[in-house]
Amino acid sequence: MKGVIVLEKEISQAVIRRMPRYYRYLNELLEAGVERISSNELSARMHVTASQIRQDLNNFGGFGQQGYGYNVQYLYDEIGNILGLNTTHNVIVIGVGNLGQAIANYNFGKFGFQVVGLFDVKPSLEGKEIRGIPVRMLDELPEFAKQNKIDIAALTLPKENAETTAVMLSSLGVHAIWNFAHVDLDNVEGMVVENVHLSDSLMRLSYSIANYDHK
Amino acid sequence: MKGVIVLEKEISQAVIRRMPRYYRYLNELLEAGVERISSNELSARMHVTASQIRQDLNNFGGFGQQGYGYNVQYLYDEIGNILGLNTTHNVIVIGVGNLGQAIANYNFGKFGFQVVGLFDVKPSLEGKEIRGIPVRMLDELPEFAKQNKIDIAALTLPKENAETTAVMLSSLGVHAIWNFAHVDLDNVEGMVVENVHLSDSLMRLSYSIANYDHK
Repeated sequence: MKGVIVLEKEISQAVIRRMPRYYRYLNELLEAGVERISSNELSARMHVTASQIRQDLNNFGGFGQQGYGYNVQYLYDEIGNILGLNTTHNVIVIGVGNLGQAIANYNFGKFGFQVVGLFDVKPSLEGKEIRGIPVRMLDELPEFAKQNKIDIAALTLPKENAETTAVMLSSLGVHAIWNFAHVDLDNVEGMVVENVHLSDSLMRLSYSIANYDHK
Repeated sequence: MKGVIVLEKEISQAVIRRMPRYYRYLNELLEAGVERISSNELSARMHVTASQIRQDLNNFGGFGQQGYGYNVQYLYDEIGNILGLNTTHNVIVIGVGNLGQAIANYNFGKFGFQVVGLFDVKPSLEGKEIRGIPVRMLDELPEFAKQNKIDIAALTLPKENAETTAVMLSSLGVHAIWNFAHVDLDNVEGMVVENVHLSDSLMRLSYSIANYDHK
């Protein structure tokens, strides 16, 4: 059992989508020194109904007592556990262009994500260092994967190379992809994938602009 | 009326979230020279049920004929119109660190998003050019906004400065923010905001890893 949380029913994607947001707000409360918060107060801060918050948390057993509100540190830790943040994740970045460099420089460390390797195919990038980590050539990845535990590969490379790279990663025992390439990677056996499509997001903004203007 | 699409009912956020994905797949079909596609074929490619596709498109009037499938170019154009992509959007980037530079270099041009200005507060960045556009100091923004039409501001800056900047943008007549700062900007009057929280996405991946391992 190893102390993991056992989910007795399938949790909906919508609930999962909201959990990191709760985590982020609770982190802000902690930083502000808040120890206890009612679901109504949390609701007002987050623009989500108190009933929604209670329902969401009840999926995981609920973490408050009626009338006493939530202990912020406890709720933060529990949501962290739900999100699998109670362990360190080693991350490699494949594709060290602007976006790859931005990812490599991003401060995910406080959530336990640690960049351990950078890979590209461009010889001019070889040996360039970001936060003390040298860029390696992609053909060194199989050897690197033997020597290092890799939990997540961030793909910041052209969409043409994304699927081949995903298949290679799978063969090397890497089973999670944070995909920034402009293609959905939903077909690789045994791989969990989180797609970040920046242009999709920009199009949703465009939709909002078009519909806001006409109101 | 100006030829805009009039929405007779509120379209759900889930539908809106899927539209850019349809648009992306249709773009790939167009590039592959496909002229017509059945909802079943589109469904198989997209891993969405054919009935879901029909329902989603029916929100906007539907664009296929029973038994004839969809004309790819027509559907692509119509979804583009729905998403407000039938017009050019001028974009400025505020915060020209790694992520800001990645955004400035990203190829959104084919969807009509054009970067017209780059702003930062760091004097060492002043005059640095990305794709021929010089980095200006943030205090030049009011004058720039008088001389140039700005449709969207991408905020790639520390969360501490995000809300102040949003309020300033609003006062300058900029009413849409593509927000990468690690804070939700949902409180600025009259502003449409699309939040991109990279760490939320990484946490969802962590959740998938934790729950995949235990299956």
